[in-house]
Amino acid sequence: MDLHVNNILNDMQKDDFNAYLLTGFTNVEYISGYRPTSFAFCIIKENPVIYASGMDMELAKNNSSIEVKEYESYDVMIRELKEDGIESLAIEPALPYSTYARFKDDFEIGSKTYIDKQRMIKTPREIERIARATEIAQKSFIQLDILNNDGTEKEIAFDLLRLMLENGASKESFDTIVTSGANSSLPHAIPEAKKLAEPVLIDWGCIFEGYCSDNTRTMVYTERQQEIWDIVAEAHDEAIKAIRPGMKCCEIDKVARDIISDYGYEDRFIHSTGHSLGLDIHETPGFSARDETVLEKGMVITVEPGIYLEGEFGVRLEDTVAVSKRGNVIGDLPLDIA
Amino acid sequence: MDLHVNNILNDMQKDDFNAYLLTGFTNVEYISGYRPTSFAFCIIKENPVIYASGMDMELAKNNSSIEVKEYESYDVMIRELKEDGIESLAIEPALPYSTYARFKDDFEIGSKTYIDKQRMIKTPREIERIARATEIAQKSFIQLDILNNDGTEKEIAFDLLRLMLENGASKESFDTIVTSGANSSLPHAIPEAKKLAEPVLIDWGCIFEGYCSDNTRTMVYTERQQEIWDIVAEAHDEAIKAIRPGMKCCEIDKVARDIISDYGYEDRFIHSTGHSLGLDIHETPGFSARDETVLEKGMVITVEPGIYLEGEFGVRLEDTVAVSKRGNVIGDLPLDIA
Repeated sequence: MDLHVNNILNDMQKDDFNAYLLTGFTNVEYISGYRPTSFAFCIIKENPVIYASGMDMELAKNNSSIEVKEYESYDVMIRELKEDGIESLAIEPALPYSTYARFKDDFEIGSKTYIDKQRMIKTPREIERIARATEIAQKSFIQLDILNNDGTEKEIAFDLLRLMLENGASKESFDTIVTSGANSSLPHAIPEAKKLAEPVLIDWGCIFEGYCSDNTRTMVYTERQQEIWDIVAEAHDEAIKAIRPGMKCCEIDKVARDIISDYGYEDRFIHSTGHSLGLDIHETPGFSARDETVLEKGMVITVEPGIYLEGEFGVRLEDTVAVSKRGNVIGDLPLDIA
Repeated sequence: MDLHVNNILNDMQKDDFNAYLLTGFTNVEYISGYRPTSFAFCIIKENPVIYASGMDMELAKNNSSIEVKEYESYDVMIRELKEDGIESLAIEPALPYSTYARFKDDFEIGSKTYIDKQRMIKTPREIERIARATEIAQKSFIQLDILNNDGTEKEIAFDLLRLMLENGASKESFDTIVTSGANSSLPHAIPEAKKLAEPVLIDWGCIFEGYCSDNTRTMVYTERQQEIWDIVAEAHDEAIKAIRPGMKCCEIDKVARDIISDYGYEDRFIHSTGHSLGLDIHETPGFSARDETVLEKGMVITVEPGIYLEGEFGVRLEDTVAVSKRGNVIGDLPLDIA
């Protein structure tokens, strides 16, 4: 049986759970290779099974490495699980309450992060795909020639998508952020139909064979903007240097946050320092003040400090780092692209 | 206070709930005008409030019609709710289990569809936006000139996106499906880097001012394909004709399903007949065999019967219908565009 499934079965056994229910599309894909397009119930147990929507049966049969049955009803599914001896059911933390409610009277339920724990350690094959996605995204960014691009924010965002698709991506990994001027103080600004103001902040990524990339660059123009850029760059560089197995995620966050605090901008660094990525653009663990996860080889996490001056401008710099003996930046796009 | 909020407060009062927790991004947007980019807890109560992520504060303050506070921790939020006299908390059905778990020991919890009930009846302003999105999407489809388009599936899907953006859409309402040949038997096929085979199935839509459109057309070429197309078109037309206030959703599904069954393809119509749309591409109610919702003026629901012949091809035809005295098709793109 698949190594991922075996590891999860071992974790389940320690907690005395007979089965583990997954419905998140990327969780189902991670376990089986089949990404649902409608809904699916993936049950990890000695003989794992997916109950898939009728409309997905052809796709699921083609792609799933584990048994697929057509979903008929909650009643049938619950009856079959009971016939299989299932009494205790672990659930993924993000399971919708309404789904939990359908199972809660028939099984002993516990919310468990077995799947997150498994997904947080990427295999070399997964890291290779993240690296390919990053390579495509960074190559496309260079082709965009942002310093000589006369388009509007919206046009530039679209051009970047076009380039990423032409270079082999299947899609964006999230809505591309191309923002400039005062709007750059919104961490998740939406591109507008206006020419670029200064500074210019671009946060972009693509998906290659299911895996995401994520980068941010900010192009600054005034002395004041450069001053802020330098602080963010220092936080970015020092946080990356601090990454190694054994460190806690919150300690990496602290490295970046302390630098920004030293310059007096602590309350203007309004998000965590980074998040894991993989099949999803946001995964666990993250470099946040509260995340006590200990770094291990195989984790892939972004480092993206930022300073946001409401009404003025914002600066964010982001790279994706694979944890090995140290933190290896994925991709080779210079931080200072001006 | 906003009419939506008042209606929900009335529903809550009947069930003796003091507060209603919403975290779904479009639920929060529907209530406040602010669409979260990170996370938010929207609490509907006599004095409604949103606890927003620090990184969203500037955006939330600019866009929210109700009070916004910066989220600090679950502890602070729960303490403030208790200080406000909240003892019973209704939750949205899709609330993640892990969020429910943070509230369940401090409040009497019940899963309630107040928000879905409110969102299912669109205002004239909402319908106007859906109509504008549909107009943009259909105009773009015509400009695509699919019958003379020499591109690959993937190129055509991208061209359609480009046209929709040029025509004023903010983005796609879902991943555009351009599929052809045998792959068209997959209801949610992914466009491939290959030239079009026959038949060609395109399922596409865009977003205009937050609201979605959704259409499907299938271009057939052989006698066999035309035979299937005619059956699906009959199911499509008759289901639309049957729509009027007072009918149940399952009755509309039955109209389409009975026609397809009469021709012997019941087991090849592998999904429900339609879904509501609005801020989300999939909303409730839906035209499914199990949905007993009674149709009311203001609902906007797709009608999209299909027949899927595994290994051969598939046909689906989809329009979006606004319920008034009867079912009014939104947009004017002919069903038979060949």
